[in-house]
Amino acid sequence: MKIEYKLIKNDNKARLGKLKTNYGEYDTPMFMPVGTRATVKSLSPDELYEVGSGIALANTYHLWLRPGEDTIKKAGGLHKFMNYKRPILTDSGGFQVFSLAKNKEKDITEEGVHFKSHLDGSNLLLTPEKSIEIQNKLDSDIAMSFDECPPYPVSYEYMKKSVERTLRWAKRGKDVHNNPNQALFGIVQGGEFTDLREYSCKETVKIDFDGYSIGGTSVGESKEVMYKMIDDGIRYLPVDKVRYLMGVGDPIDILEAVERGIDIFDCVLPTRIARHGQAFTRNGKINLNNARFKEDFTPVEEECDCYACRNFTKGYIRHLITTKETLGGRLLSIHNIRFLIKLTEEIREAIKDDIFLEYKEQFINKYSK
Amino acid sequence: MKIEYKLIKNDNKARLGKLKTNYGEYDTPMFMPVGTRATVKSLSPDELYEVGSGIALANTYHLWLRPGEDTIKKAGGLHKFMNYKRPILTDSGGFQVFSLAKNKEKDITEEGVHFKSHLDGSNLLLTPEKSIEIQNKLDSDIAMSFDECPPYPVSYEYMKKSVERTLRWAKRGKDVHNNPNQALFGIVQGGEFTDLREYSCKETVKIDFDGYSIGGTSVGESKEVMYKMIDDGIRYLPVDKVRYLMGVGDPIDILEAVERGIDIFDCVLPTRIARHGQAFTRNGKINLNNARFKEDFTPVEEECDCYACRNFTKGYIRHLITTKETLGGRLLSIHNIRFLIKLTEEIREAIKDDIFLEYKEQFINKYSK
Repeated sequence: MKIEYKLIKNDNKARLGKLKTNYGEYDTPMFMPVGTRATVKSLSPDELYEVGSGIALANTYHLWLRPGEDTIKKAGGLHKFMNYKRPILTDSGGFQVFSLAKNKEKDITEEGVHFKSHLDGSNLLLTPEKSIEIQNKLDSDIAMSFDECPPYPVSYEYMKKSVERTLRWAKRGKDVHNNPNQALFGIVQGGEFTDLREYSCKETVKIDFDGYSIGGTSVGESKEVMYKMIDDGIRYLPVDKVRYLMGVGDPIDILEAVERGIDIFDCVLPTRIARHGQAFTRNGKINLNNARFKEDFTPVEEECDCYACRNFTKGYIRHLITTKETLGGRLLSIHNIRFLIKLTEEIREAIKDDIFLEYKEQFINKYSK
Repeated sequence: MKIEYKLIKNDNKARLGKLKTNYGEYDTPMFMPVGTRATVKSLSPDELYEVGSGIALANTYHLWLRPGEDTIKKAGGLHKFMNYKRPILTDSGGFQVFSLAKNKEKDITEEGVHFKSHLDGSNLLLTPEKSIEIQNKLDSDIAMSFDECPPYPVSYEYMKKSVERTLRWAKRGKDVHNNPNQALFGIVQGGEFTDLREYSCKETVKIDFDGYSIGGTSVGESKEVMYKMIDDGIRYLPVDKVRYLMGVGDPIDILEAVERGIDIFDCVLPTRIARHGQAFTRNGKINLNNARFKEDFTPVEEECDCYACRNFTKGYIRHLITTKETLGGRLLSIHNIRFLIKLTEEIREAIKDDIFLEYKEQFINKYSK
């Protein structure tokens, strides 16, 4: 099986859905934690299960470089390699090529992208075929098409050419994709240009993928532009396929995107800010480096059900963060991922009860006050 | 209650015992993991319980500097601060003062040790009274006397003066100790000088502590000298008090020390080598950075019951170590601590069956081959 998405109900444009995978059924909207190098930084698979994680992400670019897709194939695929018994989505590597290439030097040709490894500066070429071949070997449950993700802003002319090339790349990737247990998603691009988003979306849908992603967000644009990018693409996506907004994990952005019809999200934010001592709370983010937490012996959030909040205080976690003890980032990662997953659980309840917009407003009022 | 040690039986000089504490009863010989800054690096308390940890260590010097003993007292003591529900032993801070003082500059006077903080170079003074006062506030179950731990080698004359001063410091510490739920241990010094070890031991026992430690080992001496240091002191210790060899965690050293009558051990070795990719196995240490493990998809040890060995392969852990992902050091820390604790479990069985020396020989033959 690949995957099956079933729309359960709408609340305005917000969608409650069910995703059937080779590794169980999961409800959407869903937040997916990011395991860049086949590990969600500092956490064990059991800790991910405990916070309610469904699909986890892994990065094709990083795993291609180390340990290499052939090594992971020999291990029996990504699931066995990292011992994660729930679904895994791999990105295409495109975003990393564009953001991590050494000196940002790259040469984008019709064939693919020539660039230098961020590790040793060696010359590398990633093509749509290569990206799919790597992902086939990684044996993730969902593979992503290789696309160009231009920065913001670029000219209309550049974006038009880029969108067309990305469509040709998407087609080439689909042609070589040959893992019968792996779904393949298409990616809508087009920047902030409404007509290009429409064009990219309609043409990507014509190629016919198992799910669709809104790409090209979180690359420097304002929130308003990002929300418009979603609106401009999503209206042309089929209702019976899952919709994925890449790289978004801010709680307010998740709510805004769900309102617009997005089903799944991923972001390094919860683990990255955790390592820097920041925690999500219902009243906004807090920074445990702040001296006012030194003798605060209450949990990060009294009402939170995560391992960190059930067992440790802000004062202790602050001590771990300020002394650079890794247990600190680990505990805050658990809390922050749980926070976003709990948010999606509440979002699903709200959609079920047709009160999503009220829920969203209440959440944002408290979070932003 | 302070603590109570009961000698169950001897097998030659090796001792099987039971330690009654405010946080439960534990069998000895026992290995104690080290939680320098109130955290056994990268591990949660639950992971420590799972590997069979009894007493855990914490470092007075580090906690004095950050977050400060008053903060930990306000948290309700170390147990509550770090949420460790088994016994805790705190060292005196002496070893860190001698090993970590900025530029190794220190001025040892009768009053105590003047030195500069390794964090900010500020002038600090640690005295026997101050060390005990800090440990009283930390509210550990076992406090250690403040001693001078000279490097190896020093002259006989220096060591003699040092031993006498350490005895005066031990007495001063005991005089101010006033935590009725905390045991206080004395420390035997004397370097490699047999008569000074005898003198230090007899005089320390006269002060009458709740347990005794053999100090001044692992400071640069050879294995043979270290074993002699144990022999020279231990013969004068009372049989009804627990005996602690500080800073020793090499499997062979543990066996040699148990043979000589030691009951408890601590060492940063299992967690430190874990962070560098090394794992204990029955056939000796292995280094997972070695390329031969890249595609080795078997556990670190097939027969090991730890979380790491039950769930992950050498190839995966190697990937984590070589890409500097903290889950790697965490998994190897779990394995290495479990390895030493399992070793002490087997040692206890062997003593029970009067086959300790055979067990020791078998273990060492396999480990050193």
